[in-house]
Amino acid sequence: MVKVKIVGALGYGGVGIVELLLQHPEAKITALVDVEEVGQPLSAIYPHLTGFCDLPVVAADDPRALEPADVIFYATPDGVGMKLAPGEIAHGARVVDYSGDFRFTTPDAYAEYARRIGRTAPHASPQLFGNNAYGLAELHRTEIRQAKIVGNPGCFAVSCILGLAPAMQAGLVEPFSVICDCKTGVSGAGKKPSPAFHFPARHDQVNAYKLAGHQHVCEVERELGLLAGREVRVTFTSHVVPIVRGILSTLYGTLTRNITEAELMALYKDFYRESPFVRIFPSAAAPGTMQVRSTNFCNLTVSVDSRVNRLRIVSCIDNLMKGQAGSALQNMNLLCGLPETLGLLRPGCYP
Amino acid sequence: MVKVKIVGALGYGGVGIVELLLQHPEAKITALVDVEEVGQPLSAIYPHLTGFCDLPVVAADDPRALEPADVIFYATPDGVGMKLAPGEIAHGARVVDYSGDFRFTTPDAYAEYARRIGRTAPHASPQLFGNNAYGLAELHRTEIRQAKIVGNPGCFAVSCILGLAPAMQAGLVEPFSVICDCKTGVSGAGKKPSPAFHFPARHDQVNAYKLAGHQHVCEVERELGLLAGREVRVTFTSHVVPIVRGILSTLYGTLTRNITEAELMALYKDFYRESPFVRIFPSAAAPGTMQVRSTNFCNLTVSVDSRVNRLRIVSCIDNLMKGQAGSALQNMNLLCGLPETLGLLRPGCYP
Amino acid sequence: MVKVKIVGALGYGGVGIVELLLQHPEAKITALVDVEEVGQPLSAIYPHLTGFCDLPVVAADDPRALEPADVIFYATPDGVGMKLAPGEIAHGARVVDYSGDFRFTTPDAYAEYARRIGRTAPHASPQLFGNNAYGLAELHRTEIRQAKIVGNPGCFAVSCILGLAPAMQAGLVEPFSVICDCKTGVSGAGKKPSPAFHFPARHDQVNAYKLAGHQHVCEVERELGLLAGREVRVTFTSHVVPIVRGILSTLYGTLTRNITEAELMALYKDFYRESPFVRIFPSAAAPGTMQVRSTNFCNLTVSVDSRVNRLRIVSCIDNLMKGQAGSALQNMNLLCGLPETLGLLRPGCYP
Amino acid sequence: MVKVKIVGALGYGGVGIVELLLQHPEAKITALVDVEEVGQPLSAIYPHLTGFCDLPVVAADDPRALEPADVIFYATPDGVGMKLAPGEIAHGARVVDYSGDFRFTTPDAYAEYARRIGRTAPHASPQLFGNNAYGLAELHRTEIRQAKIVGNPGCFAVSCILGLAPAMQAGLVEPFSVICDCKTGVSGAGKKPSPAFHFPARHDQVNAYKLAGHQHVCEVERELGLLAGREVRVTFTSHVVPIVRGILSTLYGTLTRNITEAELMALYKDFYRESPFVRIFPSAAAPGTMQVRSTNFCNLTVSVDSRVNRLRIVSCIDNLMKGQAGSALQNMNLLCGLPETLGLLRPGCYP
Repeated sequence: MVKVKIVGALGYGGVGIVELLLQHPEAKITALVDVEEVGQPLSAIYPHLTGFCDLPVVAADDPRALEPADVIFYATPDGVGMKLAPGEIAHGARVVDYSGDFRFTTPDAYAEYARRIGRTAPHASPQLFGNNAYGLAELHRTEIRQAKIVGNPGCFAVSCILGLAPAMQAGLVEPFSVICDCKTGVSGAGKKPSPAFHFPARHDQVNAYKLAGHQHVCEVERELGLLAGREVRVTFTSHVVPIVRGILSTLYGTLTRNITEAELMALYKDFYRESPFVRIFPSAAAPGTMQVRSTNFCNLTVSVDSRVNRLRIVSCIDNLMKGQAGSALQNMNLLCGLPETLGLLRPGCYP
Repeated sequence: MVKVKIVGALGYGGVGIVELLLQHPEAKITALVDVEEVGQPLSAIYPHLTGFCDLPVVAADDPRALEPADVIFYATPDGVGMKLAPGEIAHGARVVDYSGDFRFTTPDAYAEYARRIGRTAPHASPQLFGNNAYGLAELHRTEIRQAKIVGNPGCFAVSCILGLAPAMQAGLVEPFSVICDCKTGVSGAGKKPSPAFHFPARHDQVNAYKLAGHQHVCEVERELGLLAGREVRVTFTSHVVPIVRGILSTLYGTLTRNITEAELMALYKDFYRESPFVRIFPSAAAPGTMQVRSTNFCNLTVSVDSRVNRLRIVSCIDNLMKGQAGSALQNMNLLCGLPETLGLLRPGCYP
Repeated sequence: MVKVKIVGALGYGGVGIVELLLQHPEAKITALVDVEEVGQPLSAIYPHLTGFCDLPVVAADDPRALEPADVIFYATPDGVGMKLAPGEIAHGARVVDYSGDFRFTTPDAYAEYARRIGRTAPHASPQLFGNNAYGLAELHRTEIRQAKIVGNPGCFAVSCILGLAPAMQAGLVEPFSVICDCKTGVSGAGKKPSPAFHFPARHDQVNAYKLAGHQHVCEVERELGLLAGREVRVTFTSHVVPIVRGILSTLYGTLTRNITEAELMALYKDFYRESPFVRIFPSAAAPGTMQVRSTNFCNLTVSVDSRVNRLRIVSCIDNLMKGQAGSALQNMNLLCGLPETLGLLRPGCYP
Repeated sequence: MVKVKIVGALGYGGVGIVELLLQHPEAKITALVDVEEVGQPLSAIYPHLTGFCDLPVVAADDPRALEPADVIFYATPDGVGMKLAPGEIAHGARVVDYSGDFRFTTPDAYAEYARRIGRTAPHASPQLFGNNAYGLAELHRTEIRQAKIVGNPGCFAVSCILGLAPAMQAGLVEPFSVICDCKTGVSGAGKKPSPAFHFPARHDQVNAYKLAGHQHVCEVERELGLLAGREVRVTFTSHVVPIVRGILSTLYGTLTRNITEAELMALYKDFYRESPFVRIFPSAAAPGTMQVRSTNFCNLTVSVDSRVNRLRIVSCIDNLMKGQAGSALQNMNLLCGLPETLGLLRPGCYP
């Protein structure tokens, strides 16, 4: 059994990985660490876990939090994992970090990200560059298997990168023409109440936000640039829609050559032939966020606007699953030499 | 492996049992029967099942529908199961019927139900009375194990009966004083579109309906009467609220003697000590429908209004799970001699 | 023109009365007072008011806040209006207070309320008892016209009292048998974000809360007691449902004598014959909260469960209108000798 | 008083104009025509209108439907208005038609539209070309004043055209680079229930649809082409989000020259200086659909992605108001020589 510790257990990212681990045949949660509600059983805070996870929340310096574990999940903001991970790795643990701390594999790439998000402190563990991997399994399966620490990708980034990767790698898209128009459910903003996500302000509201730039763009441009073999620039617009779980990203790019939808389908299917969590649909189908809710799948619908020679991909994920805890568990499986889909192959429920 | 056939596979009740069976370690779906979409794979109609259940929908007279099965689920309206079940039972199958056809164990009790719902045709299979059981496992576990056919209970009835059973059996409640004020999510009305459940008409709407009487009252009064040992009459009000899954029933009754909340908690916990799907909470807690969503649990909150000597129980279930497919699977487990909770012990996901 | 000042302009109660006053032909807003966002135009905080109300928010001691006004609305919590109102009244203003401060017309009745809500400080302006009125126009039209200060009623109380008043006055209901099962939209909890009303926690959630007792019960029992001519005790359950605006209260009481639904309809229609904002429907109709949304109407559906001789009334209001700002404006009209419906007779919009 | 007849009174477009006319100081509804519910008062179908509009629905051949009126609204699908309008115009009426029948002012332009929507029948009233106008008042105020019949614009078209018009007229955008990524509330699909808009299927769903092309594109391309003075081609993606009212369109185009956001603001403000229903916001603000709900406003947020020289406009309207009944009333005002804003200047309500 893989012994697992979760740091930041109380947020949506924390409880999400708990729910998955409870149904994973090879994992056992050994400690739940957070800064609030210390001493409370997790089920007192999340009553749906009553009888499933009655472990108490412990502080980071509690002896139970210091017991060695095989895998640590840092469901924490930027700057936390980079401080704590080295000690755990020194004791033999593998780490999955949810923040941007380890999403970039070189100091320069990280510095560019830090600059964009306005972070001035230097990286606390630069010695780990080279031992980390970008945790999008569909693109970096091999590196993840060999890494000590995985930077779990941002939710928007997962939807955009998976949606554009095959086309970018094939050189089909003009690199400065990419537009990502993303619609996210409210859980993407986390568990903390705020005026914009107060129910009366959100129930009947759709709006764009952060028009000046979103922190996930950096990893999208980097990954697409690696695939294209040249610099890629993305116009990115994030919107919030009144659903709880789900991101639908509509992705546009100017085609470098004529291609039919059928050819595009074939290209995408081939690219993802070994990736069971990516499903490809033709433009006549229109699955939405509900068809991936509570699952680790990414549904891609491909289409071409041939009148203006433009690619258009609709990419749907559950932002808390493939966009967060699901990818994290997929990464844990790879880190531990387990089957990639273990504990994750479930269809969700409808309606 | 238990071979399972589902008749009425396309409705919410059908797809609900499919989702559960796909994750059940001892069951295998052998046929999906319905009158529409014949020939289509189920995953074409429910894309979230892509890769999980690509079996085609077949007509009732298709050879694949006629293959023997160990368990048949009739996810069909009143009047269907009573016609088809005898043939299947003759071939050795056990049956779970979702409708009112087999919820009553005597011809008289059924006749009273038929009268209330305005059904004039006689029961098509009266010879099965005596071989059937009311499928609320918490009250009729033993009878279900020995039955050939189980009448799966109505969703409102599950929430009301489980909420009142311990108090009624203890003689704590005046039998004509019971009020069930029920709030249901929209999925309770099924998959068929209608003006009242069109999104724009429902998104911001709460309303009462069927003030003249709901068909589920009959089984509530019967089961409570059996527990109380005398006639029970219930004022029942059904409301629709804009959630998808869930019933919250607020249950009132005049107490026959003084009792504290703590004593009531003890009484309820004792009554359900062998029923893992019923969880009891004190009045200070206020779990709602979301804490049982996508699960087979029934959460009960007990309280006493001592100023007027009144019992008040808040009962929450997922109408499509404990109120339908979950109870159906629980009944299948009992019919097949499997552990009652097999394939059902999952916490749901949050948010 | 009536010059109007609003204290507590930034909450839902404040912006609600602003919206109504902007369309009132005889009123003019002269000052918006609050403790936050001072100096900001109201339209910067509520962009839908851009071009309609660009007045700045001012502090309570700002000269603009001290200008005399004809009517003051205190859209403030308990304890504020009682301190500030006497000074304004001394300058000739009439006052509408949203809190419980002036809902009771005798020191004893207020003391009972204060005890129930755990308020220990004595009333700051006991000299005003006798000059105040309970602001439910349908019951206290005459007193309101003559009052100097009106205690605007609680939203739950409006729905329950209007629903039961005719039956209580007619002596139709056993006084200890009343049950109010209330379902409220989320705006009733106000503008301040909190975990229970965070969108992801509420979107698919229905729950009961405050099972130990709600502060509005006190005024319900008092008003019903006045109508019945004897003590009335109410079992009150409040639930939150995921709509923004609206309260639906299902009201039950044991009948003291047989009565048909038609007789009940006639009784109710007669009781409200001079109250244009109350509409009576038979039990076959089932209007919900959406049919009163954004309006000052109270829709009542009457029914009788003759099997157990029980009255059942379904009462629907918009909690922010008839339950708050609409009643407040209706009270202003009465205080100022204007037609009661002025600026309030609008149908709302659908869907 | 302007005497008004509404054909197609029962749909959202019909009831929407009724609600507006009831509050219009110069209009009087004389007949409500529809094919269903004939003889019923409108308030029986829409209970929120009880006491406001109790006129009966009449058939098209009812004498009350044949009485002359000053203005006729055809809230009907393609093909109806073109048959009925000539007779009414011959009797001196002015007409506002909600369908595509009169949105194009030349036979050729109409033919292109008919081809795209697969309509094979020829236009029934070609003699009216030249007497009609495209009913987007902000662009065609003068023509509308002089027209006999106005083709009320499509809801998506209103949001896209208003959002792009200033930039297109200024020659700022490459004509084949335009992308309209539109998110609509569910009321845009009308009153008729359907599987995709059944509450359980929609409550937690965001999806793209009609990827092969939407019928509103034709009028967008035509109007933008007129402004640009050359052919414009648009990639158009429509999405449905779970709100009732509102369209948010995110509009992209490659800039033909450098421009700052401040310059763009100035350009837009100048273009709309005589259009009181268009409000311009900078990119730091992020008003959404809720800030225009139930109003006739169009809120535009302007921004520039200078890294790739791309224009991005976020355009918000209420699809049933500025996108339908509100524009229709604005057109009636222009047709009748009344102030353009009469009966339409209201702020909406929040939340």
